[in-house]
Amino acid sequence: MVQVSIIGVGHTRFGRLPERSVDLMRSAITEALSDADVSPERIDAVWVANFSDAFDGQCHLAAVAASLLGRCIQAQRVESACASGGLAFKEAARAVESGRFRTVLVVGVEKMASASPGLAVRLLAGAASPDEIAQGASFPGLYAMIARAHFERFGTTSEQLAHIAVKNHEHALMNPLAQFAKPLSVEDVLKSRPVASPLHLLDCSPLSDGAAALVLSAESTAQAPRVLGLGHVAAEISLAARADICTMDAVKEAGALAYSEAGIGPGDIDVAELHDCFTIAELVQFEDLGFCAKGEGGPRLASGSNRLGGDLPINASGGLKAKGHPVGATGVSQVVEVVRQLRGCCGQRQVESADMALCCNIGGSGSSAVVSILGR
Amino acid sequence: MVQVSIIGVGHTRFGRLPERSVDLMRSAITEALSDADVSPERIDAVWVANFSDAFDGQCHLAAVAASLLGRCIQAQRVESACASGGLAFKEAARAVESGRFRTVLVVGVEKMASASPGLAVRLLAGAASPDEIAQGASFPGLYAMIARAHFERFGTTSEQLAHIAVKNHEHALMNPLAQFAKPLSVEDVLKSRPVASPLHLLDCSPLSDGAAALVLSAESTAQAPRVLGLGHVAAEISLAARADICTMDAVKEAGALAYSEAGIGPGDIDVAELHDCFTIAELVQFEDLGFCAKGEGGPRLASGSNRLGGDLPINASGGLKAKGHPVGATGVSQVVEVVRQLRGCCGQRQVESADMALCCNIGGSGSSAVVSILGR
Repeated sequence: MVQVSIIGVGHTRFGRLPERSVDLMRSAITEALSDADVSPERIDAVWVANFSDAFDGQCHLAAVAASLLGRCIQAQRVESACASGGLAFKEAARAVESGRFRTVLVVGVEKMASASPGLAVRLLAGAASPDEIAQGASFPGLYAMIARAHFERFGTTSEQLAHIAVKNHEHALMNPLAQFAKPLSVEDVLKSRPVASPLHLLDCSPLSDGAAALVLSAESTAQAPRVLGLGHVAAEISLAARADICTMDAVKEAGALAYSEAGIGPGDIDVAELHDCFTIAELVQFEDLGFCAKGEGGPRLASGSNRLGGDLPINASGGLKAKGHPVGATGVSQVVEVVRQLRGCCGQRQVESADMALCCNIGGSGSSAVVSILGR
Repeated sequence: MVQVSIIGVGHTRFGRLPERSVDLMRSAITEALSDADVSPERIDAVWVANFSDAFDGQCHLAAVAASLLGRCIQAQRVESACASGGLAFKEAARAVESGRFRTVLVVGVEKMASASPGLAVRLLAGAASPDEIAQGASFPGLYAMIARAHFERFGTTSEQLAHIAVKNHEHALMNPLAQFAKPLSVEDVLKSRPVASPLHLLDCSPLSDGAAALVLSAESTAQAPRVLGLGHVAAEISLAARADICTMDAVKEAGALAYSEAGIGPGDIDVAELHDCFTIAELVQFEDLGFCAKGEGGPRLASGSNRLGGDLPINASGGLKAKGHPVGATGVSQVVEVVRQLRGCCGQRQVESADMALCCNIGGSGSSAVVSILGR
């Protein structure tokens, strides 16, 4: 099997960018190609990650990407709700591993910050099961049910969740591409307006515009981080049909596959980007990926050991919560961040001795997940 | 490289099915698994083809598919506008070829016939370039420009295009799953209301609901048709930026790749399903796939030699025009039809001595294309 290296990365600013359109894709692609020092002609295939065409009305991004490159090329869009970016990365990496392609491009994009609140609410709820949609479930409402179950079963508290938001905002202060450069206190989070009890506004990631891109290659260089393990799983979509809503089976299984492929365990990870669409989501993934035992995520994440400088920094980029969450770009952005951490070029937010990194990108209420392990 | 066989097919009726929902997926999957005689546990991965979540509000079909199978499984949605189904087939076949999976499922679905006319018009136009969308281009309008250029350059006529619709409606009379069981005359087509000159209403495929599914396997049986060649290309999306709008570069290039991989040429094909979203589209693909010289498609397709019983039957299923065009399902449906032709089980519409078949599935105004060659 061919070893896959990430030889180029590109990343626009995340945030409310009303003046930008799909040209966000162009910016991220141009930067990634330049970073990799490869011309568009060297690209053999393209994977585009995007959540919903309903945001900006562009329904054929594969052909848009081919046109941006000025090429007749294998280009395809993939989607698995908020895990679309991770999925594109996984599919592209598998294609290089198979020996079919030498150099491929991955780009994730979403233009959603200008969507009407009604449209955004409807589309994000659309990642739920048909029954949940029919019953009027909302995206925060589903995560609120997970949080409530976690509180009841393990004694997790709103304060503990608030610490996650505080940590990620603190990290985003050191990321010039992040949507928010605004420190938060635990009190700020707890006093923010309730969205779906027990989740407050500041437990939730924002609506964002942005794009991120990667160049993967079968040719490795000494400096280029390598793909060590990948896991991708879709599982039961409906919360009501799950044995235990405090556990995301897709995350657990995808994590196990990725660890097994990499031949390592959670204790070997130096830096991780988890999918904190809501604070409770980061907590559940932290447990399901084996960074602590089930139920212990609340106290652990509130302890400070996952802040920059701690034992295992989580979301040094600011995470979805503070860096922003342009859905299709998010999974790609996570990989861009850990590539930069592994290269050691993250400046103020650099994690020391970062040799092994993990990204976890999930879709919907955790019914699909892609876990990627990279090393240098 | 592993040889890929198609061991099971499933196909719902196409048409206006207001009482159905994503359960269409379930019907097609159940039939394909039963046809292949494999249980859901034997499936290693799933590819879902779907054009737009805006039609039915379900934005996470990968997880819906996993839930339908009751599995934790690699499931992913792919999209390339109207070529989504062919793309899912190609991606699934490549994954089996690579040796990573033994048995995989492909399902295409769209629920669009109940969409408001405004929504359908907007979404289909969304497969055009950002500039074309900004200029208010419509999907039929873009194909009308292609038709007009073909008329002016090669003397192609509306009568010749009408013969394509007449042929495909004639074939659909023999397909119990087709949307229309209604014979047409050339006069009917020419007298139908103008949609975008020179295209009339009866030059256009309908809005449809439906689903189709395939089981692919690395284990071949004597009877199972095999994948001989695949080509997938995305190219310039904007008509204005193309050197020649009478030629679809993506089709030409994808065809060349598929022929080369199969080691055959157009003269070896016994039966073909082309993507007749508009009559002019079938004509351009007929030429670009080398079934005749550029410019000769009009007289050839009007000659009767591509009807059932002729030299090379095109769209024996009824095609998009008369079988229906539930976008995400269409490319999968094409493969289902040729598998049934190669198995020799098409009854009245069976093409005699069908040993080698071709499917061409395109996206937008021909800016993406998947060409598949199957044999027995």
